[in-house]
Amino acid sequence: MKLPNLITDPNTLAGLSHDEAEWAPAGTARAAVRPRSTRDVQEAAKACAAEKIPIVPRGAGTGLSGGANAVDGCLVLDLSRMNRILEIDADNLLAVVQPGVVNDDLKKAVAEQGLWYPPDPASSPWSTIGGNVATNAGGLCCLKYGVTRDYVLGLEAVMGGPVEYGTAVRLGRRTSKGVAGYDLTSLLVGSEGTLGVVTEISVRLRPAPGPSATIVGAFPDLVTAGQAVALATSRGLQPAALELIDRACLQAVEDWKHLGIEPDTAAMLLARAETHMDADGLVSAFTDAGAVWAERSTDSAEAEALFAARRLVYPALERLGPLLTEDVCVPRSRVPEMLARIEKIGARHGVQIATIAHAGDGNLHPLLITPPGDDNARLASQSAFDDIITHALDLGGTVTAEHGVGLLKRDGMIRELGHDAWSVQKAIKHTLDPLNIFNPGKA
Amino acid sequence: MKLPNLITDPNTLAGLSHDEAEWAPAGTARAAVRPRSTRDVQEAAKACAAEKIPIVPRGAGTGLSGGANAVDGCLVLDLSRMNRILEIDADNLLAVVQPGVVNDDLKKAVAEQGLWYPPDPASSPWSTIGGNVATNAGGLCCLKYGVTRDYVLGLEAVMGGPVEYGTAVRLGRRTSKGVAGYDLTSLLVGSEGTLGVVTEISVRLRPAPGPSATIVGAFPDLVTAGQAVALATSRGLQPAALELIDRACLQAVEDWKHLGIEPDTAAMLLARAETHMDADGLVSAFTDAGAVWAERSTDSAEAEALFAARRLVYPALERLGPLLTEDVCVPRSRVPEMLARIEKIGARHGVQIATIAHAGDGNLHPLLITPPGDDNARLASQSAFDDIITHALDLGGTVTAEHGVGLLKRDGMIRELGHDAWSVQKAIKHTLDPLNIFNPGKA
Repeated sequence: MKLPNLITDPNTLAGLSHDEAEWAPAGTARAAVRPRSTRDVQEAAKACAAEKIPIVPRGAGTGLSGGANAVDGCLVLDLSRMNRILEIDADNLLAVVQPGVVNDDLKKAVAEQGLWYPPDPASSPWSTIGGNVATNAGGLCCLKYGVTRDYVLGLEAVMGGPVEYGTAVRLGRRTSKGVAGYDLTSLLVGSEGTLGVVTEISVRLRPAPGPSATIVGAFPDLVTAGQAVALATSRGLQPAALELIDRACLQAVEDWKHLGIEPDTAAMLLARAETHMDADGLVSAFTDAGAVWAERSTDSAEAEALFAARRLVYPALERLGPLLTEDVCVPRSRVPEMLARIEKIGARHGVQIATIAHAGDGNLHPLLITPPGDDNARLASQSAFDDIITHALDLGGTVTAEHGVGLLKRDGMIRELGHDAWSVQKAIKHTLDPLNIFNPGKA
Repeated sequence: MKLPNLITDPNTLAGLSHDEAEWAPAGTARAAVRPRSTRDVQEAAKACAAEKIPIVPRGAGTGLSGGANAVDGCLVLDLSRMNRILEIDADNLLAVVQPGVVNDDLKKAVAEQGLWYPPDPASSPWSTIGGNVATNAGGLCCLKYGVTRDYVLGLEAVMGGPVEYGTAVRLGRRTSKGVAGYDLTSLLVGSEGTLGVVTEISVRLRPAPGPSATIVGAFPDLVTAGQAVALATSRGLQPAALELIDRACLQAVEDWKHLGIEPDTAAMLLARAETHMDADGLVSAFTDAGAVWAERSTDSAEAEALFAARRLVYPALERLGPLLTEDVCVPRSRVPEMLARIEKIGARHGVQIATIAHAGDGNLHPLLITPPGDDNARLASQSAFDDIITHALDLGGTVTAEHGVGLLKRDGMIRELGHDAWSVQKAIKHTLDPLNIFNPGKA
């Protein structure tokens, strides 16, 4: 194919051919490009359409589902150089960015104007807004403030199908409300690059949040912690974050970073409250559910350290061996039951499972740890992974809350959707990408 | 066509063949049915598909864009009898309803359990959740709490195309988060019955809101009121409602209902604040922008009367003559400019325009009043209506914020979307409804 600045060096290509999903298969890319403008993306899409070459877009490669993994013979589109913040419109509470802008960089830039971009996946220091849009990323504060889709007002995407491949189409709006036509913006968010390549994103901003209190509770076991979450929800409390972290996770962070955390209990709940009523209510709910202790942190350094620890769980555990990261979500009242089932699944398969959870949302991330180089352990982990999906569906849950389908959750997704909804999904994919060149084989 | 309980009485059919959009053309329906179950809707869809008969679904018929107007030879599907609340799950903050449930009835039922369904279109005493879903209805509190789409977790819809016509497809989920597959739920919300017939809706609920304060400001002219709105936004205030009402609207309500309002100023801003900081900040912003007076209401009966007056504006003005209702939305900073342009447009065309606005969202509802039976006035109103759309687009706005496209805004929508996005929209419609029988010719 003829494109300027094609990258074909095998080592560079290999580095651009997978995300952080251990075990998700990655194919061999034909080449890669690093577009700097929408026009570059359009040219790449046109060239690929002419030769029916698959296009796999990627941001920072922090995904956990294989959504950015290369497929054989593809062109990798590394969008990390399209990293300009094009506009911050404080009067209208919006920003316009290129897809390669790193989440935390956007947060910092808008904070200088007293504004806030809420979506905060744990990967926010590295992951890009484009990647967040592709997976409809969540995070800690989405419990109160919503996920990426709730903040995307409009998009520019290079598409194909009903328009000529390589056409840049503007979707959505700049106003706070709007119902002109089908909501194609929401359709593109979470579509993992399978309907086109997002080249510009208009996001909604909020005023900077006010002060918050941190509430910590220690629990004798995971299920009791889950019951505290269900109790807080049923009492109408509205924390801005409600995270569950088990001992294995805390221990791994402490061993690595020496933050001074004492992981002396089986599970910890970590909450952020923005009103006194919520703060007091959370302490009561934790205590009433059976916490060993629960208190409002009076030490802001300690509170910060705890949230920092939460964000470090994933890389800390990765030091112990390849991780298989689950991302199931169950109705909030079923969190205790799901936690109990996860413990049983780990025991049955002989797999060490460390669990973190955006518990207030019912979104659980069991992390399956496998000793490096142990093929039997790997098979056991895979079986446990599949079992967790089955049980999440059994409890009325979903196979992926925020990480995306990618390669790891395709079978689970089809089971969840059912035949008819899957048929509708496939028809939309076929209509918008009849050549099947936009990230084929994913979500 | 063969369907049980077909309604063919011309008078009944005529009543079921239009919504409240004055002047939107309504065709002559062949018949109507009042399904009581999803199965009834499936049978109707199958029968219509077999004979390529258009299906026009309707709820309470309170729409303002002609979206529920009959097309010639169609079957009207009156969903108002599918009005059961199927489930309220307080533990998981969700409810499952049939489409014919009236918005206020759902609000009352969940309030008994300490919960809240926020979307509050002014039509909430009459309009149905199914109709709200079809138009992605907004309302007063969407400024802080979002629109209908933000509350729809999942849907059941009778669809066609990739599935056999008459298939009931389940979309979405019951969990608070989920990214399995394309977001077809959001695609159906706001699609005005053109992609299928929604037969069941799972909505997200919130804990009941806390106490709020009402802030009222009186302004010497519309533009100054608009500047107060822009100032409140740029200062980061977050009222739960921020409504603008001009003198013509207040006067019409007072003449009708005698609430004791004194419409002695050109425009009033009416806000609801949930924190002391927001309440004090709004009074300051109103004053600093040039209010004649601004104060926090100390009389809750008075505050209630003001919000009640806001809700009565539309029926009060309708008593004066047929209304053409605009529903444009501009970026918030452009509200003063748009208000100035609306005044000029009214003067230029000799049309009386009364304006209410969800001003905090930038969503303006200029109401064009036409003396009954005056054809020239009607033509002038139509020209003014088109001019307002042109100017909203010119200021970076949208042609419809919350009422829907229906028949009245089709041309405007196509201008707003542009050729490419419109091509994508049409392709999706064709894929999901190749027979073009679901509410053809709308949105």
